Amino acid sequence: MAENGYTNKELKKYKNMAKEKIILTGDRPTGRLHIGHYVGSLRRRVELQNSGLYDKTFVFIADAQALTDNMENPEKVRQNVIEVALDYLACGLDPTKSTIFIQSQIPELCELTFYYMDLVTVSRLQRNPTVKTEIQMRNFETSIPVGFFTYPISQAADITAFRATTVPVGEDQEPMIEQAREIVRRFNYIYGETLVEPEILLPDNAACLRLPGTDGKAKMSKSLGNCIYLSDTADEVQKKVKSMYTDPDHLRVQDPGKIEGNTVFTYLDAFCRPEHFGLYLPEYLNLDELKAHYQRGGLGDMKVKKFLNEIMQETLEPIRNRRKEFEKDIPSIYDMLKKGCDTAREAAASTLDDVRKAMKINYFDDEELIAEQVRKFSGE
Amino acid sequence: MAENGYTNKELKKYKNMAKEKIILTGDRPTGRLHIGHYVGSLRRRVELQNSGLYDKTFVFIADAQALTDNMENPEKVRQNVIEVALDYLACGLDPTKSTIFIQSQIPELCELTFYYMDLVTVSRLQRNPTVKTEIQMRNFETSIPVGFFTYPISQAADITAFRATTVPVGEDQEPMIEQAREIVRRFNYIYGETLVEPEILLPDNAACLRLPGTDGKAKMSKSLGNCIYLSDTADEVQKKVKSMYTDPDHLRVQDPGKIEGNTVFTYLDAFCRPEHFGLYLPEYLNLDELKAHYQRGGLGDMKVKKFLNEIMQETLEPIRNRRKEFEKDIPSIYDMLKKGCDTAREAAASTLDDVRKAMKINYFDDEELIAEQVRKFSGE
Repeated sequence: MAENGYTNKELKKYKNMAKEKIILTGDRPTGRLHIGHYVGSLRRRVELQNSGLYDKTFVFIADAQALTDNMENPEKVRQNVIEVALDYLACGLDPTKSTIFIQSQIPELCELTFYYMDLVTVSRLQRNPTVKTEIQMRNFETSIPVGFFTYPISQAADITAFRATTVPVGEDQEPMIEQAREIVRRFNYIYGETLVEPEILLPDNAACLRLPGTDGKAKMSKSLGNCIYLSDTADEVQKKVKSMYTDPDHLRVQDPGKIEGNTVFTYLDAFCRPEHFGLYLPEYLNLDELKAHYQRGGLGDMKVKKFLNEIMQETLEPIRNRRKEFEKDIPSIYDMLKKGCDTAREAAASTLDDVRKAMKINYFDDEELIAEQVRKFSGE
Repeated sequence: MAENGYTNKELKKYKNMAKEKIILTGDRPTGRLHIGHYVGSLRRRVELQNSGLYDKTFVFIADAQALTDNMENPEKVRQNVIEVALDYLACGLDPTKSTIFIQSQIPELCELTFYYMDLVTVSRLQRNPTVKTEIQMRNFETSIPVGFFTYPISQAADITAFRATTVPVGEDQEPMIEQAREIVRRFNYIYGETLVEPEILLPDNAACLRLPGTDGKAKMSKSLGNCIYLSDTADEVQKKVKSMYTDPDHLRVQDPGKIEGNTVFTYLDAFCRPEHFGLYLPEYLNLDELKAHYQRGGLGDMKVKKFLNEIMQETLEPIRNRRKEFEKDIPSIYDMLKKGCDTAREAAASTLDDVRKAMKINYFDDEELIAEQVRKFSGE
């Protein structure tokens, strides 16, 4: 036996585990995914999956989390599980490389959440800036559901259950990862080294942070009708690009135009690559030249939008086509998800076993405990 | 199919279930049980178990709940699981009549808690008077562990998991049962009739409410050293009775004495039966006579304490002896608990199945959902 009642073999296992690089990431199934998701996380997630740098990738459809503020509308969540799965596959997430699963099918996550709740104080949760913002966004004020209030703890369970080392999310999620790290440190401090501390992996490109809606509003949302969905038809995409918000003071072609806050240029920053000019707009060498022309005047919005539309279609067409293919065999998508859930559950159950062992609430497997009690009551 | 997507057979099953009378009750394993537990709940619990009025009785050792405010001292909780089990058996709880189990071994309770958390608001929890009092008692102030703050929700899971109709607790627990009832009503309203609303069963005798410590303090507590434990030896009991708090102004035997706040008389109210006078104090017919003599003066504390000691010994000796017998075979106690956990888990899993089905998060079992999605994507 080595430290903390673990065998040397077990300690070695944990040290190896800590060396494994494991990604965890996911989305709430409250609607089809849009290009904001694509730019903000999906595109990169596929790159990471294919990079060969990570030992395992877990991607989950966070239905249980979506229910925390959609408890009265479970049908919305339920209907969108398959939509998100289709979007994942369409973007190139590959079930042979990534474990794709549904959160609610992993009961171990609830059990970890339950015990982690004892390691966090109410005031600590109240100070979480991400929770504060999200509560404001939802106009919850005093009627916050407890499940929503505590979701940083549930996220810590999601991350640690799979021993994730790496969570690729935006800067706005940093407080969530910090909360998970705090829980890991506190658990390990009380019960001995058991859980793995995750690191945030921030986007390496400023344009990947957050894409505004087509109307220029900061947030894409179904209710505002300002999203381009990955599953939109070519016509829908074209129509949405055409109606995009630009510079409201750029009235005539010859007027100077603003780039800042001009959604068309924000989208170009996110999607345009140098080779697109050769293909669709050979009069310009690169985006800087295009921007300079717009700024000094003489470049019309329609021309820029047409260019953006070409790029969007090029980006979205293969995704849309793959999605159509996957849509032809829905039962096989459920099969894929079921297999993903089985794999994920095995991983989470292994972590939970370690957690219960560390907490010493594994009474019936613990022969030492029983022997100790026998000695105690026989007066030895 | 009948209402809510249930078959008529299922609806009938639920109606039968609702007719079953099921008791749920338990204790936190933070120490051996004392006569406060005995008078306040254990004695009655055994009567209820043996009454034949209830179809099922579930009694649980609430280790997970004890951890909510003992997370840093899991060893205390762990060591006391077996102590509470021994106290249960010693008092006459009978594993052939009652299912005795350990809370943490039923993961379904965590999953129910997780989903119920979406049905309760943070401000509703803050208004819970029992939680308010308990927070004050523990000097938590702002550093309340989330798991402690949310324990009314966890209790609702404990109660509903076993479809308990009847929860025998003291008046101070009424807000907890009301919280459980609210959760049941809200769940059933959103998802259709699934859960059973519990009723509180209050003690039928005022003396059973709460026994003070031997020092007269309102609360018995290990740290105050003012408890008589069910497992105390005859000598320990005698010593504790001798040193009990009485009327501090009753200095000489001939002085009039007060009954109110006099712990010895409070204990007599809880334990003394008319036949005890014939056996141990034949000069008096009943407790009223004894009290009257004490009040008018001429009755010494020692005489009353001696009488109380006789009664306490009579009450506690058979319990102590049975406990000694059970202590001789500790492994069989763990076996009994293991069997109880298996039975309890089966019951909780059946409720959880119903809950998941009602919430429609049983995706892979739901052929109708898959067929519906196939139709949707084939454009029908």
